[in-house]
Amino acid sequence: MQFKLTREYVDHLQEFIKEKRDKEVVELLGELHPADIAEIMDELSMEEARYIYLLLDGQKASDVLVEIPEDDRKEFLEVLPGEIIARQFIDYMDSDDATDVMGEMTEKKREEVLSYVKDVEQAGDIVDLLQYDEDTAGGMMATELVKVNENWTVQICLREISKQAEDVDEIYYVYVVDDDDFLKGILSLKKLILNPTSTRISNLYNPDVISVRTDVPDEEVAMVLTKYDLVALPVVDEIGRLKGRITFDDVLHVIREEADKDYQLATGITQDVEVSDSAWIQIKARLPWLLIGLLGGILGARVIGGFEGELAAFPAMAFFIPLIGAMGGNVGVQSSSIIVRGIASNSLLMSSVSSKLVKELGVALFNAVICSSLVLLYNTVNAASYALTLSVSTALFSVIISASLFGTFIPIMLHKMKIDPALATGPFITTTNDIFGLLIYMGIGRLMFSLFS
Amino acid sequence: MQFKLTREYVDHLQEFIKEKRDKEVVELLGELHPADIAEIMDELSMEEARYIYLLLDGQKASDVLVEIPEDDRKEFLEVLPGEIIARQFIDYMDSDDATDVMGEMTEKKREEVLSYVKDVEQAGDIVDLLQYDEDTAGGMMATELVKVNENWTVQICLREISKQAEDVDEIYYVYVVDDDDFLKGILSLKKLILNPTSTRISNLYNPDVISVRTDVPDEEVAMVLTKYDLVALPVVDEIGRLKGRITFDDVLHVIREEADKDYQLATGITQDVEVSDSAWIQIKARLPWLLIGLLGGILGARVIGGFEGELAAFPAMAFFIPLIGAMGGNVGVQSSSIIVRGIASNSLLMSSVSSKLVKELGVALFNAVICSSLVLLYNTVNAASYALTLSVSTALFSVIISASLFGTFIPIMLHKMKIDPALATGPFITTTNDIFGLLIYMGIGRLMFSLFS
Repeated sequence: MQFKLTREYVDHLQEFIKEKRDKEVVELLGELHPADIAEIMDELSMEEARYIYLLLDGQKASDVLVEIPEDDRKEFLEVLPGEIIARQFIDYMDSDDATDVMGEMTEKKREEVLSYVKDVEQAGDIVDLLQYDEDTAGGMMATELVKVNENWTVQICLREISKQAEDVDEIYYVYVVDDDDFLKGILSLKKLILNPTSTRISNLYNPDVISVRTDVPDEEVAMVLTKYDLVALPVVDEIGRLKGRITFDDVLHVIREEADKDYQLATGITQDVEVSDSAWIQIKARLPWLLIGLLGGILGARVIGGFEGELAAFPAMAFFIPLIGAMGGNVGVQSSSIIVRGIASNSLLMSSVSSKLVKELGVALFNAVICSSLVLLYNTVNAASYALTLSVSTALFSVIISASLFGTFIPIMLHKMKIDPALATGPFITTTNDIFGLLIYMGIGRLMFSLFS
Repeated sequence: MQFKLTREYVDHLQEFIKEKRDKEVVELLGELHPADIAEIMDELSMEEARYIYLLLDGQKASDVLVEIPEDDRKEFLEVLPGEIIARQFIDYMDSDDATDVMGEMTEKKREEVLSYVKDVEQAGDIVDLLQYDEDTAGGMMATELVKVNENWTVQICLREISKQAEDVDEIYYVYVVDDDDFLKGILSLKKLILNPTSTRISNLYNPDVISVRTDVPDEEVAMVLTKYDLVALPVVDEIGRLKGRITFDDVLHVIREEADKDYQLATGITQDVEVSDSAWIQIKARLPWLLIGLLGGILGARVIGGFEGELAAFPAMAFFIPLIGAMGGNVGVQSSSIIVRGIASNSLLMSSVSSKLVKELGVALFNAVICSSLVLLYNTVNAASYALTLSVSTALFSVIISASLFGTFIPIMLHKMKIDPALATGPFITTTNDIFGLLIYMGIGRLMFSLFS
């Protein structure tokens, strides 16, 4: 049914490439879907990938180009002359994909390629689409769509659609506009097929059409399309004229990227890395967070250093340093991740900051009572000193409360400052809570040990 | 264009509900999309939500029912008699949604409701669909689809489609089957519209149809649909007969859930919680992880306790306990999250475990050298003792290496044992690395301080 990539398949292919058996390579790639070919290329060396790529024909080659990762695509296109890029790829692509590819080029290269694009309409669309910020509806949309005039009949529509549909991969919906191109409504192909050919469109279309403006950010586009379960979303300008459409597959990528980004930040990685990325890319994505952790650790050492005298007298104080640090970190990450998800799904809209802090305080109080009682029990059973027993439980209680409030407040504040709140969930909050927790613990410890000894 | 939920809107609505001004409530809800009504209900109390819900008419009410969260739906349906549920909701629903709703009921209630479903075909479909595991293609699919016989002409097809299309919200694709219902291919509406009515279907359809079997797990369904950018995916049985179809909106939910689940595990939350959930639900989701952290902290205290003598003699050893713990945790989470994402996107397939461990070792070595050199520099500048300086850097180096390998290995192992590898990314790995790091640090410290003093 669908293709399954195996080690054997890749081994075979690599052997054919090595021996330059082009016919066998083409046979092996056969009728594969562009997404499969891109997947295979990802497993090959750059030279091998380029080799099989140049064996593909025009439409297939441009479809594959859209599927391969941005970095590889850049490398691929850098060595090709502008004329080839225009004639072999851009001419075959949908306007949104073509714009994405062109947007990745240098200004000079882009102009060169544009000058070779044969289809003038396509070149014009690309120039228009390049004006939009790539993270907005305008930057996501394609100009290819099927639109009909509200005054037409079904018959005229069907004729027009057959003209327009040449450029459009899938129709999904037919958009209805007035004489000035204002979006009036939407029409399903089902209705067109099921109604007599003399029916006027104005009697058929659904005026309740959900659309987005060109300047709407991509996260919002994703939210609207998901919420209303739409396959495609029309995009209009400031005054409501139909400019393009965004399809569900573009939105799938936005959703994946958003989720990946939050996950990366929560796990301490600064950029998109995959298992298959080189060691160097992984180091660049991971080292910065480790350096923050390192700095936090050094600050922690300074904090504890301030209590050297107490530690010499009561070394048992050191026993619970990891517990306090770990609990502060865990609680803080929990709190901020709930807020971050809430912001992402827009469910934060309704209730005020103070009501969220109050609820979080309730949760924190409960968890703090349970955890500090358990530690109290542990220390009592183990006959630890009063001073230690009281310090650990009091400090743990305070740390859980403060880390909760801190973890709730920081992402809300970042969001209000238009900074990505997900930044708060990773090593940043664990590190801050670590230091804060140490200060609380050592401070309380000093007090308790001076009281009880 | 689309509805924006505001505090004022909800306030208004609540006032009307309080004063039982039904006409105003219905007017206010007006032509809203079911997804919007579900969103509004989420902001109301259970009684208010039920009140406005009972004002909705049949089709709208069943559409809204599908949109509201599972827990609320259960509460809603518990109090309604089976006859009402069958006549007012199940009869109006698509088979997959109806099956989901019925699957949430007790066996007894389900049988009662089924006995009242008027549409025999619908009842039969529900009984069939209930046989499938809900996390498989069979459990996700709906039986509503448009299929045509390969031997028909375009004209017969259009007539048949107009009959079948009554039950189907959106057609997307027309599936082509043979006399025995085996899936032969796929036909776009575009092709149907653009070809003469006498053309035979067998000359039009595309035989390269991507389908999934009923027993394929939902993650794989999501992967196939995303990879090939499909709006809908046909589902076939073991021998290839067409059984149903899965549409992109069902997959969107799976993708969201998957991403949310990984994120939750990475940030130490055991189940799906939202900002709007009650404090009690949040406690249940968060406390288990905190208890794991607590246990880890107590084990850590035992480890350090074993070195009480050294700490009394050299209290400076305690200074860097948080640094070692934090770095071990951060490195471990980074490593395992990269593996978890790799497993999720299936890009792990190709290379062997050992090659991944080797690459991870390279990354770890580099990061370990940088971080331990920086700490070495810090301690030298601050004129710390030889013993401390060497202990900290040697231990940090070892901890980064071991946490990396551990963080890479554990999720791979979990995956092989058919346990969700994402379990490895949260407090579990930070806690384990904490204890392990302490053992390394305190052990090296004991050695160094005995050598240098």
